[in-house]
Amino acid sequence: MLLRSLLLLLLIAAPTLGRADDGYRLWLKYDQLSDAGLRKAWQGQARGIVLESAATPTLQTAANELQLGLQGLLGQPVAVGNKAGGKGQIRLRVAPNPALGKEGYRVSTQKNGLEITGPTDAAVLYGCYALLRHVQTGQRPGNLSLSSQPRIQYRLLNHWDNPNGTVERGYAGSSMWKWYELPERIDPRYQDYARANASIGINGVVLNNVNASARYLTTEYLQKVAAVAGVLRPYGIKVYLSVLWAAPKVIGGLPTSDPLDPKVKQWWTARTNEIYKTIPDFGGFLVKANSEGEPGPQDYGRNHADGANMLAEALGQHEGVVMWRAFVYKANSKGDRFKEAYQEFQPLDGKFAPKVLVQVKNGPIDFQSREPFHPLFGAMPRTPLVLEVQLTQEYLGFATHLVYLGPLIKECLEADTHTQGPGSTVAKVVDGSLEKHSVSGIAGVANIGSDRNWTGHPVGQANWYAYGRLAWDHTLSSAAISEEWTRMTLTREPTAVASITQVLNQSRNIYVRYTTPLGLHHIMGQSIHYGPEPWLSQSARPDWTSVYYHKADSAGLGFDRTARGSNALALYAPGVRQLWGNPATCPPDYLLWFHHVGWKQQLSTGRTLWNELCTRYYSGADSVLWMQRQWEQAKPALDPELYTDVASRLRIQHREALWWRDACVLYFQTFSRQPLPSGLTPPTRPLTEVKEIVDIYQLR
Amino acid sequence: MLLRSLLLLLLIAAPTLGRADDGYRLWLKYDQLSDAGLRKAWQGQARGIVLESAATPTLQTAANELQLGLQGLLGQPVAVGNKAGGKGQIRLRVAPNPALGKEGYRVSTQKNGLEITGPTDAAVLYGCYALLRHVQTGQRPGNLSLSSQPRIQYRLLNHWDNPNGTVERGYAGSSMWKWYELPERIDPRYQDYARANASIGINGVVLNNVNASARYLTTEYLQKVAAVAGVLRPYGIKVYLSVLWAAPKVIGGLPTSDPLDPKVKQWWTARTNEIYKTIPDFGGFLVKANSEGEPGPQDYGRNHADGANMLAEALGQHEGVVMWRAFVYKANSKGDRFKEAYQEFQPLDGKFAPKVLVQVKNGPIDFQSREPFHPLFGAMPRTPLVLEVQLTQEYLGFATHLVYLGPLIKECLEADTHTQGPGSTVAKVVDGSLEKHSVSGIAGVANIGSDRNWTGHPVGQANWYAYGRLAWDHTLSSAAISEEWTRMTLTREPTAVASITQVLNQSRNIYVRYTTPLGLHHIMGQSIHYGPEPWLSQSARPDWTSVYYHKADSAGLGFDRTARGSNALALYAPGVRQLWGNPATCPPDYLLWFHHVGWKQQLSTGRTLWNELCTRYYSGADSVLWMQRQWEQAKPALDPELYTDVASRLRIQHREALWWRDACVLYFQTFSRQPLPSGLTPPTRPLTEVKEIVDIYQLR
Repeated sequence: MLLRSLLLLLLIAAPTLGRADDGYRLWLKYDQLSDAGLRKAWQGQARGIVLESAATPTLQTAANELQLGLQGLLGQPVAVGNKAGGKGQIRLRVAPNPALGKEGYRVSTQKNGLEITGPTDAAVLYGCYALLRHVQTGQRPGNLSLSSQPRIQYRLLNHWDNPNGTVERGYAGSSMWKWYELPERIDPRYQDYARANASIGINGVVLNNVNASARYLTTEYLQKVAAVAGVLRPYGIKVYLSVLWAAPKVIGGLPTSDPLDPKVKQWWTARTNEIYKTIPDFGGFLVKANSEGEPGPQDYGRNHADGANMLAEALGQHEGVVMWRAFVYKANSKGDRFKEAYQEFQPLDGKFAPKVLVQVKNGPIDFQSREPFHPLFGAMPRTPLVLEVQLTQEYLGFATHLVYLGPLIKECLEADTHTQGPGSTVAKVVDGSLEKHSVSGIAGVANIGSDRNWTGHPVGQANWYAYGRLAWDHTLSSAAISEEWTRMTLTREPTAVASITQVLNQSRNIYVRYTTPLGLHHIMGQSIHYGPEPWLSQSARPDWTSVYYHKADSAGLGFDRTARGSNALALYAPGVRQLWGNPATCPPDYLLWFHHVGWKQQLSTGRTLWNELCTRYYSGADSVLWMQRQWEQAKPALDPELYTDVASRLRIQHREALWWRDACVLYFQTFSRQPLPSGLTPPTRPLTEVKEIVDIYQLR
Repeated sequence: MLLRSLLLLLLIAAPTLGRADDGYRLWLKYDQLSDAGLRKAWQGQARGIVLESAATPTLQTAANELQLGLQGLLGQPVAVGNKAGGKGQIRLRVAPNPALGKEGYRVSTQKNGLEITGPTDAAVLYGCYALLRHVQTGQRPGNLSLSSQPRIQYRLLNHWDNPNGTVERGYAGSSMWKWYELPERIDPRYQDYARANASIGINGVVLNNVNASARYLTTEYLQKVAAVAGVLRPYGIKVYLSVLWAAPKVIGGLPTSDPLDPKVKQWWTARTNEIYKTIPDFGGFLVKANSEGEPGPQDYGRNHADGANMLAEALGQHEGVVMWRAFVYKANSKGDRFKEAYQEFQPLDGKFAPKVLVQVKNGPIDFQSREPFHPLFGAMPRTPLVLEVQLTQEYLGFATHLVYLGPLIKECLEADTHTQGPGSTVAKVVDGSLEKHSVSGIAGVANIGSDRNWTGHPVGQANWYAYGRLAWDHTLSSAAISEEWTRMTLTREPTAVASITQVLNQSRNIYVRYTTPLGLHHIMGQSIHYGPEPWLSQSARPDWTSVYYHKADSAGLGFDRTARGSNALALYAPGVRQLWGNPATCPPDYLLWFHHVGWKQQLSTGRTLWNELCTRYYSGADSVLWMQRQWEQAKPALDPELYTDVASRLRIQHREALWWRDACVLYFQTFSRQPLPSGLTPPTRPLTEVKEIVDIYQLR
């Protein structure tokens, strides 16, 4: 009997041979709707698809995707044709409609059935995905009327992918771009990647790392880039390239890369013309210059505007744009990195050519788990600013911690810059409405790699999804998106959906609590940006240490950025300055970003700083156990492989939350010299032991 | 009509959503046999599986795999139990049998049905895979009797995988070992990896790069290693680790790593004991020391034997062994790298402890597409030598060139060292029979990564397969293995099998022809080891250039390794020396390895060196077109996605074969100053243009 039981167990655990739900399909899961009534209701509406406009590749793609989705969801054949044929036909039609902009769609109920229209074929494609989403999330047909247009024009993914197949700060395998195989071999993933992006409205991708190789500008590589562009084009997606500022020297044989040198200008113009000969709808350039050792116009005494404008000129009459990153900071142990991008870029406002957008990270430091919005937002009214957010979890637990980023992105978008009075949100700066720009952009640093499920952590897919949805419409709520994603990707069973979305929606706050509560920032393991290392005091640059940021001493904790300190607060509009400048009104979540607070100082929460700090570290780590329970509750509704995958990662997350908690509490206790608040059990391991762990992860 | 045709086309090209044959299953394809008669013949033999011995995890695994395979292949349920139940039962039984060694199996026809026996549970597992292979390749049952035992004891894969997820010289995505996820999360791939290895008899894997991180020896990482070991154990596979020689300093806090220092010895002993506490069946250590900048005992004035023996002592009574690599060479522009490993290691013969095996690459340089066998084989009769071959195609076109390595591995195994008279083959040195060693080993540097199909190029799977089969039984023919692999993995359709195996069997010779014919070697692009760069004359080390090796001048081409030159030939036994030392008897394939030959010198082929060289470059490149045609002929019998994948890579291969051809012919022509032989069309591009390409692939 025992043997039989063992064998039975073995059979259950038998190799799945890749047949389980391995996450490859992302949220585009066109499995048959289990609710027969719902299925029937839709079946009558979807007997066929009629192409009423000329079948461009994009329109054909739209019809094809709609057919694929509806056939799967409804379990019936759905024919595609170009002639209306009775009731229940879904008509796709390109038709001008000033109310929809260039990319907006309308899905409406007409006499003979549903109609999906838009002013361009890409708009119709977006409409098809909107209808599929509607069906897939379990909505009823009713008198259907869906209409939406994007609020931001350039909705990009930035890949930090290197030509050697590695991904800078990538945690989902290697790069999905197989440069050695291109242009001859087109990996089938490219098309599925395009489908996923188009389904959430992403219309541009930068293929390579901002720490760029010049090779992409060579004729050899442009052939490869063109092959990728060919796959993405029918999905309404343009390719962009990050460029190495020194390219004219490195591959052009010129002695200089000075943007004002005529030969340099000429070289860029010639290269740009060749790019457009090869890729007529090329999107444009992304540039990281004079930042973290990258070359740039300052090497020749020029400024960022000189550089960006020269590239804009090279683009000439072509449609492409220049996205010039404002992520710059100089090593200065007496300075405040917080202020440096502002100081370099704000004075250039008004100096950039019309084709230039300046790309600004959400916060002033570098993708920390919580940052105040970047002070450049609202401070460069004559320059369109691209918001750059990071989907790959460089500082948020890689692919092992479950952190849904919807709340983080929304927090930035909804932040009020007060630059033109209350309500001057970052979203309104970015979408161009506040400062009346005709171009607007947003960029998400991709969390996508060659891993079968694309993002390593299955819930990383939700971050790709949420980014796309917010890039399209930043007024959507983070919770609505997490529910939508869950219903499309994991399950439509209501209690499981509730259980899972609670985890997602709380996850970012929980991560902040057990790593960097109360506005702590940049205290993670050096170089790898993983695990706690608040004691780090020596590094290649002062602003790459932890002590630079937390300033712990016997008196207290936090970076004084008021007028008594670095005065970084002065970069913000008065409305912000007043709120954040006073420790009593500064939200606890931002407190240590701006104030050096005494250990015994009482906070608005009613606890002293020290007690509040400890409480947050402990409750944060404990909350991971809550996440585990919530996930377990959803188990019956989930694919077993997927359930186990996330459950395992949540166990890692709890182990590492304790690592963070113990490291930070024990380390900061050496300054506070106070016991833990009552009710909290002190760590059982000494600080020396915790310190060793992060070193291990930094060994060659 | 046009529209309809276009739509039809689209439907055919519709996203496959991962349902095509993506290569994940490797050769373990248990699809139903299409031949009904054959199926029926086997069905009667496989009604059930009976475990006659105690159900150890390995025996359970064996039963489970056999059940999975037979159910799939035969399309009938196959029950597993522990009681005989009528006819057609396959009995699994562990029983001592001196004739089978420790791992040999016997599959035999008994009165009541088939029986699979072996002296250990692992042996029975191998027997199950042998039976499955027999069924899967389409053999008839007949009076079945299969019996085999491995000729080599340690049959290892060496992973050059780094802890950050990259793979040194890996071309199939990132590392499959997800160290950040371990030990909590066990990627389902680990089990499928174990299945694949066990099916070909691999019984050990070194998890990490020989350029090793010390982190694997920490308690933190040993937990992770133990989790992997737990997955591999039921499949008869042990884990090994590469160790960093400086570990006692880097993680042990000691001031030295001197192998004779008592504290260092103590540290290694303590670490080793902890390893065995965590992983009781740990396999042992692999060491790259004092090679290419790695630390080693020579840093303290000790030799390789001092280092290896200290580790052997640390292993003490534990079962593990030390595999100490002989891949060493010092930078010396006047020397000959060919001789250096010999000079360092041969004098140490007899000085190594019994637990030490010395691991020697197949050739004296570094995994070139063709090398003479390493002169150490046969020259260290008192030391068991592990043969190290490379499956990842570092110098053989990465994952874009189709190169089946069976012939390369066989060529080395069958090479006659003459050290104990004719017939003293490398195989007999390695399997221990020539020099009467009780231990023997072979190592394949893995070509496995996280890519869905494991090896990047689908035919890369054949190299993993062939390595395992030859490690088990080096007397198998390379052609028999390629046919077996093709029938298991691609198709059993006879004309397609013939067409494909011709490609496989010729592919290595073709690659040699268009890259390094006639014994040219090490003329590839620097650092990346891709593409041609015969003109390379400056590098960080003289022996990392190309001119160091080909010695082209106005007189001729090739490295004179006779007594007039470096005299590396003196390292070989007289029988070899005589054959290779005379240009007239030296096989043309090895000619330029040993001789500087005049451009107008007539070769045994009837052509002058220059004409033969050009002819080989041209015919090699042309042969890729032949490969394409052969592959196309097999198309009807192949999965469409797989067909397209390989067809695309063959197009890359032809483009790059022309790149090699043009680069080498044009470059060497600057020395030979002769026209191409008649009938060959000179390259249409100038040398300057070809030279630029390899530079592009070497840019940051």
